[in-house]
Amino acid sequence: MNKMEILKKAFDETSYQLSGHGPRNAKVLKQAFQEIDEDTKSDIYGTGAAINDFEEKMASFLGKKKAVFFPSGTMAQQIALRIWCDEKELAKVAYHPLSHLEIHEEGGLKKLHGIETVLLTDRNSIIQLEDIKTMSGDVACVLLELPQREIGGQLPDYETLAAISEYCREKDIRLHLDGARILETLPFYKKSIEEICSLFDSVYLSMYKGIGGIAGAILAGNDDFIKESKVWKKRHGGDLISLYPYIFTADYYFELRKDNMADYYEAAKELSAKYNSCEGISTLPEVPVSNMFHVHIDKPKEQAAEILAEVQQESGIGLTGYVREINDGSCYYEVSLGDSYAGVPQDKVEFAFRLLDEKLKA
Amino acid sequence: MNKMEILKKAFDETSYQLSGHGPRNAKVLKQAFQEIDEDTKSDIYGTGAAINDFEEKMASFLGKKKAVFFPSGTMAQQIALRIWCDEKELAKVAYHPLSHLEIHEEGGLKKLHGIETVLLTDRNSIIQLEDIKTMSGDVACVLLELPQREIGGQLPDYETLAAISEYCREKDIRLHLDGARILETLPFYKKSIEEICSLFDSVYLSMYKGIGGIAGAILAGNDDFIKESKVWKKRHGGDLISLYPYIFTADYYFELRKDNMADYYEAAKELSAKYNSCEGISTLPEVPVSNMFHVHIDKPKEQAAEILAEVQQESGIGLTGYVREINDGSCYYEVSLGDSYAGVPQDKVEFAFRLLDEKLKA
Repeated sequence: MNKMEILKKAFDETSYQLSGHGPRNAKVLKQAFQEIDEDTKSDIYGTGAAINDFEEKMASFLGKKKAVFFPSGTMAQQIALRIWCDEKELAKVAYHPLSHLEIHEEGGLKKLHGIETVLLTDRNSIIQLEDIKTMSGDVACVLLELPQREIGGQLPDYETLAAISEYCREKDIRLHLDGARILETLPFYKKSIEEICSLFDSVYLSMYKGIGGIAGAILAGNDDFIKESKVWKKRHGGDLISLYPYIFTADYYFELRKDNMADYYEAAKELSAKYNSCEGISTLPEVPVSNMFHVHIDKPKEQAAEILAEVQQESGIGLTGYVREINDGSCYYEVSLGDSYAGVPQDKVEFAFRLLDEKLKA
Repeated sequence: MNKMEILKKAFDETSYQLSGHGPRNAKVLKQAFQEIDEDTKSDIYGTGAAINDFEEKMASFLGKKKAVFFPSGTMAQQIALRIWCDEKELAKVAYHPLSHLEIHEEGGLKKLHGIETVLLTDRNSIIQLEDIKTMSGDVACVLLELPQREIGGQLPDYETLAAISEYCREKDIRLHLDGARILETLPFYKKSIEEICSLFDSVYLSMYKGIGGIAGAILAGNDDFIKESKVWKKRHGGDLISLYPYIFTADYYFELRKDNMADYYEAAKELSAKYNSCEGISTLPEVPVSNMFHVHIDKPKEQAAEILAEVQQESGIGLTGYVREINDGSCYYEVSLGDSYAGVPQDKVEFAFRLLDEKLKA
């Protein structure tokens, strides 16, 4: 095994993990379905109580007129942008250079929808009003991802959001929220989900980040937008005969976890402080604004992997199963707090961080 | 309630249904997952044993090099055609006028992939070699749907298939199998699945027709084709973090039903004969060549619905929950045989058909 494989194995064999909600295994499904009666009818191609009840519930929760359940956020967001582009007859949108659509979707937005993109700001910054005011050319829609995942889950302040929203309305630019992790930001913003969503014309929410379902996404907006999004959902091959395996689990874990986001946020602040007290480690952001942050280590990837593997083997505490290179001398990994953290004995956590600090100093 | 709603309700309230594998409810999932250990790991974005084992199994079953699991056939088939079009740098394919891609996908192939279509033969015929030889212009790929679902599940004979395959290879036209229901045709063709699939460059198989899973599809072909199809799967938003709810159920019902297709075929022939003995009813095809057929009734839709509702209310035997208009004086519905038929008491079936015949004569 190479050092990366050893790190993965060391993490997989730990007794406790600091991130997440626990392993992604069949228990996630079986636990949710324990409560579902065998006679409960499947949704059929987007119709039936199994899907429509949850769509209505989520529309109401987000403060939007309508919502539609999608198998994936990738599909939901491409479609949202396509609808706004068609409305304005302008196949151009603007988003962050590290948007999911730009770096994780094999260019689907361009290759399937022929939509051009304007990249706002530089890779390591968050989007400000000025970036939108000074972008080159017209766009049909601006997409904001809150928090900006690929740079550690950073956020603009609420006033910036409100100003961007106002500007886009003035200029007749649609504003779409990549809110995969939007629930996780509410404790920082100290705002209701409806308040945040009211700033946007359309909103996407993931069912498996903070909520911890199996897969799936909600797209919400006005009546015409949602009607059109269902047509595109069929075109994309997302209008499955049955989506209930994802819907019932999404609903179950939504109820279980929607009110836990403040706990995850506090845990993230606590854990990031532990990381920042270690030699040669800094977190991004330094103080988290949601349940997530990135851990930056001032060591080459291989060396950091070796240390992290040892710490995990010796402490039984799972920190990470991977590291990614930033440059020759540094690397990083992502941490997202969920249910698991509260169940980890604090003395073992302290021991792990003492070990980590010692090994980094050595 | 109008007559169509009464018909739907009458069907839903019957004790026995002649079609299908039983109700589409949560039991379908729960039964399959009873056998799955809670610790079984999820697939992760197309990787892991949960998805790769089943893909390998299905590739081998179909006699193809590789296979990939898709959330839907709509997605799988658009992607198959796109790959063949890109390969030939010609965005044009040929298929039947009632192909799923032409009538049930909101024009996804055209709107997402910009692929033009040539419609082979007329709506009520099956595609013959001559239709392909005489079509206007070049195409990258011909899609054959076996059986041709929208005309009652008709089939060309095997010699025609073999001749079409040979012709397409000569002319460097790729041949794709819309084999959503291909397993259901094997008892008629008296061929192995590998023999049928060997005639085609790419093959799609549905997980929820004869197999009776929840949703999902397999696309199979050569190495490069499958590699490329995974890239497009991500672009379409089909590369979900977890597809295991569909995969484990597909595998469970595949094992349960793959060898039952001859029974469903015999049942279809038996049941179609009962229909054909009724006044003013004919089935298409007259003698089924798979587990399916269409029931044509020489009565206006509303009148037929009323009679069918009465028969179902009086007999407790479920025939259909809908009828579709052909013209002012006739209508039809589809019948697909599955596990349910064998469990229906034959004396009740006879009684239902006597009632149906009487009411049609009245």
